[in-house]
Amino acid sequence: MSIEHSVEEITQSDLERLPLDIARIHELAEALLPVYAQIEDNAPLSDETLNRKLVELMSILRELHPADMATVLESLPHKERVIVWKLAEPEDDGDVLLEVSYAVRETLIESMNKDELLAAVEDMDADDLADLADDLPHQVVMEALQTRDEEEREQVKAAMSYRDDQVGAVMDFEQVSVRADVACEVVLRYLRRFDILPNHTDKIFVVDEEEVLIGVLPIRKLLVCDPDDMVEDVMARDVVRFRPTDDVEEAAQAFERYDLVTAPVIDEHNKLIGRITIDEMVDVIREESEADMLNMAGLQEEEDLFAPVWDSVKNRWVWLAVNLCTAFVASRVIGAFEASIAQIVALAALMPIVAGIGGNSGNQTITMIVRAMAMGQLTGGQAMHLLKKELGVALVNGLLWGSVMGIVAVALYHSLGIGLVMVAAMTLNLLLAAAVGVLIPVLLDKFGRDPAVGSSVLITAVTDSGGFLIFLGLATIFLL
Amino acid sequence: MSIEHSVEEITQSDLERLPLDIARIHELAEALLPVYAQIEDNAPLSDETLNRKLVELMSILRELHPADMATVLESLPHKERVIVWKLAEPEDDGDVLLEVSYAVRETLIESMNKDELLAAVEDMDADDLADLADDLPHQVVMEALQTRDEEEREQVKAAMSYRDDQVGAVMDFEQVSVRADVACEVVLRYLRRFDILPNHTDKIFVVDEEEVLIGVLPIRKLLVCDPDDMVEDVMARDVVRFRPTDDVEEAAQAFERYDLVTAPVIDEHNKLIGRITIDEMVDVIREESEADMLNMAGLQEEEDLFAPVWDSVKNRWVWLAVNLCTAFVASRVIGAFEASIAQIVALAALMPIVAGIGGNSGNQTITMIVRAMAMGQLTGGQAMHLLKKELGVALVNGLLWGSVMGIVAVALYHSLGIGLVMVAAMTLNLLLAAAVGVLIPVLLDKFGRDPAVGSSVLITAVTDSGGFLIFLGLATIFLL
Repeated sequence: MSIEHSVEEITQSDLERLPLDIARIHELAEALLPVYAQIEDNAPLSDETLNRKLVELMSILRELHPADMATVLESLPHKERVIVWKLAEPEDDGDVLLEVSYAVRETLIESMNKDELLAAVEDMDADDLADLADDLPHQVVMEALQTRDEEEREQVKAAMSYRDDQVGAVMDFEQVSVRADVACEVVLRYLRRFDILPNHTDKIFVVDEEEVLIGVLPIRKLLVCDPDDMVEDVMARDVVRFRPTDDVEEAAQAFERYDLVTAPVIDEHNKLIGRITIDEMVDVIREESEADMLNMAGLQEEEDLFAPVWDSVKNRWVWLAVNLCTAFVASRVIGAFEASIAQIVALAALMPIVAGIGGNSGNQTITMIVRAMAMGQLTGGQAMHLLKKELGVALVNGLLWGSVMGIVAVALYHSLGIGLVMVAAMTLNLLLAAAVGVLIPVLLDKFGRDPAVGSSVLITAVTDSGGFLIFLGLATIFLL
Repeated sequence: MSIEHSVEEITQSDLERLPLDIARIHELAEALLPVYAQIEDNAPLSDETLNRKLVELMSILRELHPADMATVLESLPHKERVIVWKLAEPEDDGDVLLEVSYAVRETLIESMNKDELLAAVEDMDADDLADLADDLPHQVVMEALQTRDEEEREQVKAAMSYRDDQVGAVMDFEQVSVRADVACEVVLRYLRRFDILPNHTDKIFVVDEEEVLIGVLPIRKLLVCDPDDMVEDVMARDVVRFRPTDDVEEAAQAFERYDLVTAPVIDEHNKLIGRITIDEMVDVIREESEADMLNMAGLQEEEDLFAPVWDSVKNRWVWLAVNLCTAFVASRVIGAFEASIAQIVALAALMPIVAGIGGNSGNQTITMIVRAMAMGQLTGGQAMHLLKKELGVALVNGLLWGSVMGIVAVALYHSLGIGLVMVAAMTLNLLLAAAVGVLIPVLLDKFGRDPAVGSSVLITAVTDSGGFLIFLGLATIFLL
């Protein structure tokens, strides 16, 4: 986030007012929908009531923090969103664009012309501009770069050269650095020359004359040390540092684990080139867990809640297609036993129970494992242990719930055979679910794939086809 | 986390070595399993090879940061875990207990005797002791409290009086406060009297003589201001503050939204009573997304990866039982159409396709909505809009994929009627999935329930029974 909206500007009233504001903004934006065209053209409104609503809406929006404006925009359908965006404070536009999700950012940028976009990115820090650059029209990026000095242009280019999942893509260039051979008093005097220190500054970086990082001076030590102490005697030397090519999720885990607020980023010659901050890492943590959740459910990416129908269809079709294929396989498994079903129609009614409990149980196993992997708690070597435990759980559940359903089946169909097949099939399918629930994420991880992606669809596929095969197979062998 | 392990002590080598260390610890702990009893009794090992391994294990463990020790313990099966815990540095025990998950904490505490527990909590901050207190034997808590002074005892009791989901449960008491009517120079001199400032100190709290919070003085301003400036001229007045009864997830969202590092906690008379810090909030954010993920999959709570089979069974049985009930309902729906199936056995093979795609699509919808609700992006007023959009997506997907499967069905069973029923049933079941996928979380939220809990099981129940009913119903009407 840019420096204009620093932490100190958020007031208590912001916090308490937000939910009320959102509701009122929704109402007002909806009421203004009929005059959408006039608002877009900046034409005056003839209707006095609507005009009053417009004025009220503008005054609420003027008070909103950019992060809150982002939340408001995310929660509005498209036309209302464009109205609100049109009325927002232009000087906040850049900050809001940085805060919204990719999907919503696209819709906002589409509604802006070149001059509006240039104005929005004008005062932006180099790292933030680099963040946005991929989503902006090429022409806008080129013109925005021309207004920067050489150093900033280099910074933007550097930041843009890293993939989104690398530390380089989220680092900023606002680090404050000093030399080791000065007194703390000198550092304090140097700091006083700033108008304000960069957000989140909890440590000063200590470098040599080649800009090589040799330590950090925590502010909480600087403030308590003797002014005559030399920096080199107070600083910490062997500190956590990152390279721009490091994985950003691993960096976020290090921040979480070691309670960091900022950390230096160095190049291959150990030169200080930037820093990463906790606010970016919090976003990474949030996005990572969300992505896992969405991926497990078979959504390709974060979706604008109010995306056009066609965009949503595109975001979802892959996993639906996969699901159809696996359902087709399951259907063919049943098809192979049509002769058995024709003889004992009860099998058709009972088979979804076997498949369903397998899917449910498998999803429990796989979710637990995906989570443990995301936390770095599960390494390949432990897979065998886990498998044994999950098979144990499956055996207990299978015998327990299988017996319950077996008794129900006997009561319904007056056949002991059906009951016994039910117990056996449920137990076996739960064992299958446990085995596959452990193996799918472990194997995906081993081959360098994200264990969360579509794992829920995959396990359901196995437990459906497997469940039908086991149940109908056992019934064919023992009941016919 | 307690103050002994401050940020400055984490070294770069910690970070790079961790994955290697974990693998080696696993190996060593496994190798030492046969002498589990001797290690537990602190008896010397006769086997020289094992003894060398024991020494190596101890030396690795001695270097571990408590947060890394926590990760190691989470990733170990029970017996190995007890060995490692036995060998860990006793002075870190308290920090490690604070870092591990509840499930694992329980197993660790069980393996410690009273004296070990007392030693572990001896130097702990009041807020951390309060955190642990629920999991510790009552006797240990009482004795630990007796060694504290009156103020600390009050703090522990205060922190323990709040629910886990309240700000009061995560606040600490390490805030630094000053008066408004002094010069910044005086503040700097006052700070210099500390040995070190508390972790994460990014602002000094400003209070009046009644301890009422009147503003905050950001360190980044204090360091740049003129030493003669008065605090009241430099401080920010209307800042974000929390009450101990505030919802901790909402506080975490405010931290995330406004990029906070610390924030004051005040009582009903606006008196400063503590502070909350970003490291606690990061944990809240992580736990919140995890809980959503686990709950959607039908796990009651975070589970120790290596929990005894019986504990895991208990954690999972509720949703399995719910699933069985819903599967039973679905089974009875099919049972009602047994006469139809007996006439056209192909129906039995095709019906899981209709149910399956409904479940998959419904899960996509519900996951997206649960996520939007967790982010505060979805208010009740928008439900109608969303419903329309999701129905639109369902209609497109239903006609598209319904037609594909319709053609496949015609090809397999040479009946145009079956194909048409397939198209209609898939479209209708997707529409049902969309409607229920929006309504379940919206209604759960409206009635104050967590929209994530078991929503996946609920939607699958509806799309299964609904899919069977629609498909078999249409087939009975049009094909018989």
